[in-house]
This record gives sequence, C-alpha cells and structure tokens, in this order.
Amino acid sequence: MADVPLLESYLAGAWHRPAGAGEPVRDAVTGVPVARVSRAGVDVAAAVRHAREVGGPALRALTFAERVPLVKAVAGVLTQAREELYALSARTGATRRDSAVDIDGAIGTLAVFASLGRRGLPDSPVLPDGQAEPLGQGGTFAGQHILTPRRGAAVQINAYNFPVWGPAEKLAPALLAGVPAIIKPATPTAYLTELVVRRIIEAGVLPEGALQLACGSARGLLDQLGGQDSVWFTGSAATAALLRGHPAVTTRSARFNAEADSLNASVLGPDATPGSPEFGLYVDQLVTEMTVKAGQKCTAIRRALVPSARADAVIEAVSARLASAVVGSPANEKAEVGALVSLEQRDDVRSAVAALAAAGPVVFGDPEHVEVAGGDDRRGAFLSPILLRCTDAARTEPHQVEAFGPVAMVIGYDGTAADAVALLERGEGSLAGSVVTADPEFARDVVLGAAAAHGRMLVLDRDCAAESTGHGTPLPQLVHGGPGRAGGGEEEGGLRAVRHHLQRTAVQGSPALLGLITR
Amino acid sequence: MADVPLLESYLAGAWHRPAGAGEPVRDAVTGVPVARVSRAGVDVAAAVRHAREVGGPALRALTFAERVPLVKAVAGVLTQAREELYALSARTGATRRDSAVDIDGAIGTLAVFASLGRRGLPDSPVLPDGQAEPLGQGGTFAGQHILTPRRGAAVQINAYNFPVWGPAEKLAPALLAGVPAIIKPATPTAYLTELVVRRIIEAGVLPEGALQLACGSARGLLDQLGGQDSVWFTGSAATAALLRGHPAVTTRSARFNAEADSLNASVLGPDATPGSPEFGLYVDQLVTEMTVKAGQKCTAIRRALVPSARADAVIEAVSARLASAVVGSPANEKAEVGALVSLEQRDDVRSAVAALAAAGPVVFGDPEHVEVAGGDDRRGAFLSPILLRCTDAARTEPHQVEAFGPVAMVIGYDGTAADAVALLERGEGSLAGSVVTADPEFARDVVLGAAAAHGRMLVLDRDCAAESTGHGTPLPQLVHGGPGRAGGGEEEGGLRAVRHHLQRTAVQGSPALLGLITR
Repeated sequence: MADVPLLESYLAGAWHRPAGAGEPVRDAVTGVPVARVSRAGVDVAAAVRHAREVGGPALRALTFAERVPLVKAVAGVLTQAREELYALSARTGATRRDSAVDIDGAIGTLAVFASLGRRGLPDSPVLPDGQAEPLGQGGTFAGQHILTPRRGAAVQINAYNFPVWGPAEKLAPALLAGVPAIIKPATPTAYLTELVVRRIIEAGVLPEGALQLACGSARGLLDQLGGQDSVWFTGSAATAALLRGHPAVTTRSARFNAEADSLNASVLGPDATPGSPEFGLYVDQLVTEMTVKAGQKCTAIRRALVPSARADAVIEAVSARLASAVVGSPANEKAEVGALVSLEQRDDVRSAVAALAAAGPVVFGDPEHVEVAGGDDRRGAFLSPILLRCTDAARTEPHQVEAFGPVAMVIGYDGTAADAVALLERGEGSLAGSVVTADPEFARDVVLGAAAAHGRMLVLDRDCAAESTGHGTPLPQLVHGGPGRAGGGEEEGGLRAVRHHLQRTAVQGSPALLGLITR
Repeated sequence: MADVPLLESYLAGAWHRPAGAGEPVRDAVTGVPVARVSRAGVDVAAAVRHAREVGGPALRALTFAERVPLVKAVAGVLTQAREELYALSARTGATRRDSAVDIDGAIGTLAVFASLGRRGLPDSPVLPDGQAEPLGQGGTFAGQHILTPRRGAAVQINAYNFPVWGPAEKLAPALLAGVPAIIKPATPTAYLTELVVRRIIEAGVLPEGALQLACGSARGLLDQLGGQDSVWFTGSAATAALLRGHPAVTTRSARFNAEADSLNASVLGPDATPGSPEFGLYVDQLVTEMTVKAGQKCTAIRRALVPSARADAVIEAVSARLASAVVGSPANEKAEVGALVSLEQRDDVRSAVAALAAAGPVVFGDPEHVEVAGGDDRRGAFLSPILLRCTDAARTEPHQVEAFGPVAMVIGYDGTAADAVALLERGEGSLAGSVVTADPEFARDVVLGAAAAHGRMLVLDRDCAAESTGHGTPLPQLVHGGPGRAGGGEEEGGLRAVRHHLQRTAVQGSPALLGLITR
C-alpha cells in the first residue's frame, strides 16, 4: 500500500495532500490498489472563495473570444498526455476502444467547443442575445438582452464512467463563458481525473483559479453555494434528488443541472426484416451499445423495442454476435468487452438484472459467470453481456430499472408508431432514443411522438449509416440531457452550453446607450 | 355572509362548488367580505389528468401559428370585461391607476404575445431550433434541434398582487407552446382571477382542458406532477424554496420557475445634481415606484442608492412629493395611493419597516397612522408611504428585508460605479435595477458590473425619459425574473417564454429525414 499514491486536491492555488492514509481504489481488472482516496474532506469554503475572487475575475478580464484559446490549450494538453491517459484508463477496466470514447472523446469535444467559440463568440465581455427591441414609437427607448458571466463557481459532480470526457465537456463551456470550475470526480476513477487536472495545471495554460479539483469527499460544498453558482451533476437519480433538494438550490437559487438515470430505447421499424440493411444496423448498434464501456454509458440502449414478430430473429442475431465478443482484460488485444469499474458496481448490475428478470428471462449470458481472456472474474469486475426478453408487458421494471452494465432487454411492440411511442414514453424521460428504419413516415411519427420524452433521437438507415455517430454518442454540437427520469438537464448543444453559465439581462435605455453597452 | 359568493373552481370541464361555507376574503378598503374561499381542497389528480389527456392533445392538434388566435381571443375577452374587472379590482385596494397596471397590463401582454407569435411562430407542430448541423464529411448525416410541446400541465401558482396580469403573462406563452394551464390564484385576490377565468370559459375561446382554475387550497397538486409538467411560481422566497424542494421537482424533474423576493435598487448617478433633468427623473421614478399598487410590486424600488452627498437633497425632494400624495379609497378620484390588500399584509409591512429601522430612521411617514381620503385606516389596509434613511452601512437588513408596500430606503454610496455595483450585489439577485444618469460611461460600468445580479436593468436619462416604461414595469418583450434571491427564474422575454414550455430534442439522421421532420 505504501507505494500507492494518495490522491491530492488542487485547491486555492496549490496541491493539497489530505491527512490520513485514505481508502484504496482498486484496479478494475486485477483488484490491486491503484490509488488511495481520503474521505477527510477538503477546505470547500476556500475553494469556492478562490473561484469567485481569483478565477472568476481572471477569466472575466478576457473577452469571450480571448477565452477560446484556453479551451484549445486544454485540448492540447490532453493530446500530449494521451498515451499516459490511455495507460491509466486501462486500470478502470476500459479497453482501448473504451478509452478512445473517454479520452479522444474529451479531446474532440474540447476541439469542437474551441472551434464553435472561434466562429461564434465575440471579442467582447458581453454576448448580445437577440436584437434590440424598440419600446416606443419615437425611437428614443429600446431594450436589448445581454448575456454576461455569472459571478460564481461552476461545480462539477461527475460520474465514474467518463473520468476524462465528463470533466472536459463540462469545463469547456464554463471556460468559454468566463466561469471558474471546481471538479469533484467520482471516487472509483478519480485517479484518472486527477492526472488530467495535474497535467493541465502543470502546463500553466489556464489562469489561476479557473480550475480546481476536489478529490475524495467534498462534504459541505453545496453549503457554500449561492445564486451565482451552478452545480453540474452526472450520476444517479437518487443523488441528483438529494443535491437538488439542498438549500443552495431551493432557497438560494444556485443553478442545478442533472444527467441521471435513463432507460434509453432503440426501436426497430416494422419494415426492417431480417436481411435488410436496417435489421443489420439495428443488431450492430445494439451490440455496440451493450459492449462499449461494458455498457457503462448513460446513453446506452437498455430497451430494444422490436416488432413482436421479429423478437426471435433479433435475439438470435444479437446472441450470435455477443457469443463471439471476447470479454477480457484491456491488456489482451482481443478483448472487446472490458471490466466494470468495480466489484461493487458488478453487484449492483447483477441486482438490477435480477429485478429485470421479473419481467422476463435472460436469453443470453450468465450474470454469475463469464470466461475472461487475460484475467478472471473473481478478482476483476468482469460480467458477461446479458440479454433479457420481456414476456410480461405489464411489468414496470423494463422501463424503470437501469442495469448500468452490458445489459439490454428485448421488448415487443405491435409494429405501429403509436405503440412504439407509448413504450418510449414509459421510460419517463430519456437521454437518447433511436429508430432504425428505412420508412421515413414511421421515423417521423416516432420522433415527433416521442421527442418530448427525449434529449436526443437518432434515425438510423442505410443512407446515413456510414457517417452515423451512433445511438450512444453525445456530440458537443448537440444537446445532451433529457427530461424527467433523465434529470431534466441540458449540456453541450454547441454554444447553448456556454449560455447556461451566463446571466441573461434585459437592458433598457436610449439606443445610443444600448449600443455603447454591447459595443 | 349569505350573499357573499363562495368561489368555485373550474376543473375537468366543469365549475365545482366546494363543500362547506369557506372563509371570508375582505375588501381591502372597507373590510367587508367580498367572497368566500374554501380550504377543503379540490380534485387535483383529476385536474392534472384532464390537462394531460384533454387539454394537451387539443392544443397539440393545432400548429404553433394556429394557437396564436387563442391568445388574441383571451385578450379580447378581457377587453370586453374591462370595466367589470376594474370595478372588482377596486375592492383589492387598487386605485384606477393600479388597476390599469394589472388589467390593461394583462391585455397588452396578451396582445404583444399574440403579435410576437404571429410574426415568429411557424404553421407547424414543430419549432426548429437553430440550423441543421452537418455531422459528417459526406453530407449524409446531420443533426437538427427541434422544440416540441411538453406533454404535461403548466401549473401557475400566483401572487396576490397581480390577479389579472399574473395569470395572463403566464398563460399566453403556455397557450402558444401548446401546453395546458392550471391556475392557482392567491386567496386574497382570488375573486378577481376567478372572474377572469369565468369570462374566458364562458366565451368558449379556448379548447376544453387548456385552462383550469383551482381556487382555495390546491393541496397535493405537486404530488401529481412529473417530468413533463412545470410549475410557475410567483410569491415569497420561503414558499418558493418549499415548492422547489418537493419530489416533483427534485426527483421527477418537473420544471420549476420562481419569481420571489427582490430588493430592487435604483442608482442616482454622480452627475445628477439637484435641478438636473436626471435628478428630477430619479425622484419622480422613486415616488412612482413607492406609490403605484401601494408598493406591492415585486419590481418596485426598495433601495435608493444615491451619492452620500446627495442624500439630503433626495430625501427632501421625495418627501415633498410624498407629502402631497393622497392616500385614499379607490372610490375617491384624488387618491394616488390605494390600500394594501389586507390588514394582515399591512402588519407584515409594518414588521418589515421595524426591521429596516435597525439600519436607520424613518424620514418620511408614520407606519402606524395615515390620513385616508374616503376611508379609514382601521378598517382599510391603508399605509402611509414610508421613506427610511440608512445610517449604518454594515447592516444587512436594507439588502435583505423586503417591505412589500410603499416603502423605500435611501442608502448612500461614494459616487463611484464600483461602489454602486457592490451595493447592488448585496441584494444577492434582483428582478429589476435602474441607473439614472446622463453619463453613459457611468451607466455602462454599473450595468456591466451588476448585470449578472439582475434580470432587467433600466438606464434612465433625459433622452429616453419621455418613452421610458419605467423601473418597475415588466414588458412581455423582455425577460422578467432575476438570479439568486429573486428566484433564479425567467418569464416573458418574448418568444423565449414559449420555449420554456417546450422540450428541446436533437434529432440526428439523413438530411432528407431531418427535412421531413421539420417540414
């Protein structure tokens, strides 16, 4: 244990080593400790003060356009550190393909935000919002909405599954907006986020105070927040509810954004018979979503909605593909499915599978045992991909229980758009949905019927398949978030994400004065 | 009591008379009961179900453009009922000028929303948001954000001070968006909102289910709400916090918008010496804000920030004006200041004045007694305008205690924009701020310095004064709301208000498919 590093926090301009020895965080593949994380807590008051008094003013001393290079520079630091990050990422159970989603995804996201910022943000401290509105007949009085940086901290509370991409997609818009960030990583993969922040701080590419890191417990952090601060949470619905009920949000109106549970669904169109391109695309996509990151993606497909008459064919095709998907250590090049992040997480997934099984049997995989290439499933958190089949349409579990692993359930529908929409809506709000069909009318009916229940919907067909980014891939250009169970939040979406960190103010006065304010 | 009507609720397609006799609501001027309101509660589950199953589908059967005439028709109904509404409004203590703000304000707001809708909303069930984003080099895959109506109810929980404008400004955007509304009026003036809804329902201008009214207790209403519903609250910060902490919001992600307390401030520029146009404008505006609606406006000026050297002159000029402002019954044409809504509300204001007095003395008015034209201050809730002067800059009360009546406090600052901004920020988030100055640089520094703490800021000078709509007047074209203490919400702002009722969804697919979806 002595050689295992105790994670430090970067707060108020310095790295802080916590008191005590901390608790070990284990390699997902071998069970060997990777790092130790302290639960002693950090000086959250000093961190928030530093963000407000040092980071915020430094960022606001720049124009919107002048902050774009900061984001680009962070992308550069991550590109430099790429192989080092990949190596450490493997210890989270991630295969090289999985690490690409997290690490290259982060770099790409930062690059896109920099590019959007370069094209869309003004060389001014003020972002005009809309046009000036005349407010009188004589032309002497008008209104103009402006957006200016809020004077608080953007607190990120991240999930364990994307220790690089998660902080990056939240940091980029905050930096562009001129708002300092405090990152609280999830403990199971905090060591990877710590490395990311360490490399950024070492590189000196950000103004002091623009970025802080609180590893371990951030107890009391929300107590410090007020109406100019914001909280960006990704994680479980239960924790989201707890945080959203804190007086910082309910009484002091700190902004709160959540990405939480989501029972994402993918619909197979009635036109997509076995042998058709869309049938193949559907199966491919489902297998991908089940296996990438071992299914530990908030956007992964949990519900496979297929015409009842096609359920057998889909199960057969998916099972055949899953049977050849090698589960194994990231060190083994053949491994297609890595490990879950921890044995505890695997226990949670097994419990969820047991709950789902109330609605129908497991038709592929054994939740209790799996062959592992280059490892074993006693020490490492390996789990077979699991496919279930819903046989009791009245049960609620398929629409409510999120098994956060390589798990999906096939659910039959009657082949109509209306029935597909009704099932999509039973998820009570999802991050991502998809429809795989060559019938544009069917696609339109499903999308317009279920759009209100989704943050993002993909229509996949033979025409766009070659360039499709896939069901489970959030893009910096498009909003990421969903209503209801998914948390009601919205991230990314291009420069929309920057606006979430700004305060909109209607300014009224003479046209000359408004011109002076917006330059 | 027998001849005093018991307020009914319009729910699930019918007027419902509650069981029991109810509690009297009294005329603000005479203390005579105007109506009775029951606390027995209504069938909230049926109301929410009706909104979702009847009102929502009926509204969504129309395109955005087809919903515009609904808003126009509601404006027409209110115009028809105008004199009747004025007559009843007088019983809330409102002078004719006060009623104009509420009733004509409502009609104008509805008309502006109809006009903005006519010009800005498509004849389609879908509102495209931004441009299509190419997502591949080959041009076969793209993304397009769309906005569609959320499938729930928009629940309004209104404040007592604007029983006509409040429901109207919340109803117009919901109707345009295609989302049914449930109005919960504040009990002290519910009889006026009830009349408004009765006339709208009688006129048959809205599809059934688009508008419901729950008078008295709406106990259990939030228990019925989920992720597709929204709550639009105007009232105290304490109630806002209670509602925002409800599981409907924290767990199920119902959208929640609050307009709450606000210690709005108006800054006198250092250039505005007595005798200058801006000095006069400042005094006029402050007197107006103190006296209109007897100061019962969430946007009224509570903090008069003046260069310390000018405090005496401002107090003298304001006091002279207040001394000639007749406090009286709305029946008396000379009355400039009407009654507060109730004796209980007057007690609250007196308590707030006592709290503020810890920071400095009352320099105009007697909180305990006032001469009343056409009434008396034992039966009617009359209160003298009260001006205080802050003599202890360290006290927090001037920046935290909202006396919701004809009360303001003069607070000195050092004449610099930085000091004015620091004082503005001590309000911790306000709905409206103003700067009265002929110095554009000073105005710009104050606005840019304090914009993040405000939802709206007015720069008043001789050039725009003739057309200025004033510090305290929210406009349908401009956002109304403010960060922090003001609730963190945003209403109005033109078609932005419509978008708050819509779900944004990123749709991905082939360009042809995206074209089909957005038409």
